[in-house]
Amino acid sequence: MHVVVLAGGVGAARFLTGLLEVVAPEDVTAIVNTGDDTIFHGLRVSPDLDTVTYTLAGAINPETGWGLVGESWHVMDGLRRYESAGALTWFNLGDRDLATHLFRTDRLRRGAKLSEVTDAIRRAWNVGVRLLPMTDDRVATSVRTADGVLGFQEYFVRRHHDVAVTEVILDGIASSCPAPGVLAAIAAADAIVVAPSNPLVSIGPVLAVPGVRAAIEARRSIVCAVSPIIAGAALKGPADRMLVELGHEASALGVARLYASLCSTLVIDDADAALAPSIEAAGVHAVVTDTIMAHPGVGASLAIACLAACGVRL
Amino acid sequence: MHVVVLAGGVGAARFLTGLLEVVAPEDVTAIVNTGDDTIFHGLRVSPDLDTVTYTLAGAINPETGWGLVGESWHVMDGLRRYESAGALTWFNLGDRDLATHLFRTDRLRRGAKLSEVTDAIRRAWNVGVRLLPMTDDRVATSVRTADGVLGFQEYFVRRHHDVAVTEVILDGIASSCPAPGVLAAIAAADAIVVAPSNPLVSIGPVLAVPGVRAAIEARRSIVCAVSPIIAGAALKGPADRMLVELGHEASALGVARLYASLCSTLVIDDADAALAPSIEAAGVHAVVTDTIMAHPGVGASLAIACLAACGVRL
Repeated sequence: MHVVVLAGGVGAARFLTGLLEVVAPEDVTAIVNTGDDTIFHGLRVSPDLDTVTYTLAGAINPETGWGLVGESWHVMDGLRRYESAGALTWFNLGDRDLATHLFRTDRLRRGAKLSEVTDAIRRAWNVGVRLLPMTDDRVATSVRTADGVLGFQEYFVRRHHDVAVTEVILDGIASSCPAPGVLAAIAAADAIVVAPSNPLVSIGPVLAVPGVRAAIEARRSIVCAVSPIIAGAALKGPADRMLVELGHEASALGVARLYASLCSTLVIDDADAALAPSIEAAGVHAVVTDTIMAHPGVGASLAIACLAACGVRL
Repeated sequence: MHVVVLAGGVGAARFLTGLLEVVAPEDVTAIVNTGDDTIFHGLRVSPDLDTVTYTLAGAINPETGWGLVGESWHVMDGLRRYESAGALTWFNLGDRDLATHLFRTDRLRRGAKLSEVTDAIRRAWNVGVRLLPMTDDRVATSVRTADGVLGFQEYFVRRHHDVAVTEVILDGIASSCPAPGVLAAIAAADAIVVAPSNPLVSIGPVLAVPGVRAAIEARRSIVCAVSPIIAGAALKGPADRMLVELGHEASALGVARLYASLCSTLVIDDADAALAPSIEAAGVHAVVTDTIMAHPGVGASLAIACLAACGVRL
């Protein structure tokens, strides 16, 4: 039995945590967005990969959802000395988190593929789930706004996503290839779950790697998505506003319409039960359950519901 | 009145500290070796520039002679998690020191010259002395040994200079240019001091930048060197063994012969007073004084002796 999860950051990491309460880690492959990877201070930072790794290692900072628990900030304190000389200080990198970026950057410089480095990092954290970056190639997400084109982290972190987005740009996507193992994992999966991540800037880039969307569509009958929109709002981040800004509906129904060609089931929250008939009318089976993974047990129940929708009984 | 100092790391930093007790910082330019610059974890590390900057800022770790006082090591601790996956952990980079490397690397990636970044860093530390890297171009010192060619830091730090050197290799030196201001500072100097640094791997690279040796030789009458060899030994580092390994004499006389074409005076330690006649016979005026800058006041006296040898009265 093998489960594949298409993953962004925080929402996906929480879903995976629940999934691992009911499935062995060696039976899970997460295919993770790398469109919001960026270079800070010459270092390659992979926010979604690290959020998933640290979360599954039990080392994530639970208050922020990113970075490490009990982190120290001496390097950032040191950088502030150079602030007036142009040092970037708006992207917080903790000391031990920086060690991950130093290791990744060094390995990449010496010729390793991101997928190889990602595997070494998750093993160093004793994470049993196989983590695959969506691609070993460099893809950079940016967004067009009234203030011009902003790199994704600039939009998301520096600007606190405070500006309307008129276009998502994925530089490098057309010439990117799925990382080794991505298409094979999709082809061999018994269940595929699209995690409750931002459909446009987290799941969107994964699907946009040439070959991935078609591979998922070919498995539609065993693909289940979890709506990241609950009662018209995202639990975290700008997904709700971005959906509206880019011409979609900020609702579980809007998500169903976006994903209709890929998934046979959409899991929606109890709060959105009234949308189930419209979702079914859009050609997607709706499963209604508690999707807010704030309490123990919810993640596991959600995972069981997803697997059941894909035809997998535990 | 303007004083130029050719500088390596620790010995030069101490000499400059003494010099600043008797000369205003704005009257001093240090031209610093960058041959032992290296890339660690994707970051550009400039050990000699940083040792001089941190020392003049009063922030050097007095026990090691490199790095910052009161430093923390959380990033290095974090890196040890990746040691079995190939992370380099033999070159210790403290947390606040890393901030300097992050800033330097980021500025260089965005197109700044090393000389510009060096100036920004020394200003951020309120260092009044003008610090010039010997070149803005990439020069990499390595050494040929019985164990093959070793990068300088690998020889110096990882191997604790425990292997005999048969050749010093300066990759990139032939096509390097003196950094902006280097030749002009030499031409305009009232006194030029070759600091008590390793003649072969600290001062050697500075002189080997095309144009620098000739510029110094043209000012020989106002050039004074301080011998880094005292009673046949280096105070710190492998200069004594390297001199022998590369066919020189490990003594103040050996230093005088190496520098005879560049300097009219060599300042030697009281312990070497007996060598003065041989040094004079080699065509270099010998000044005998206390050169061990372990006690307060010695550095200032040494600086005054050097300036006097160059014809500068304070």
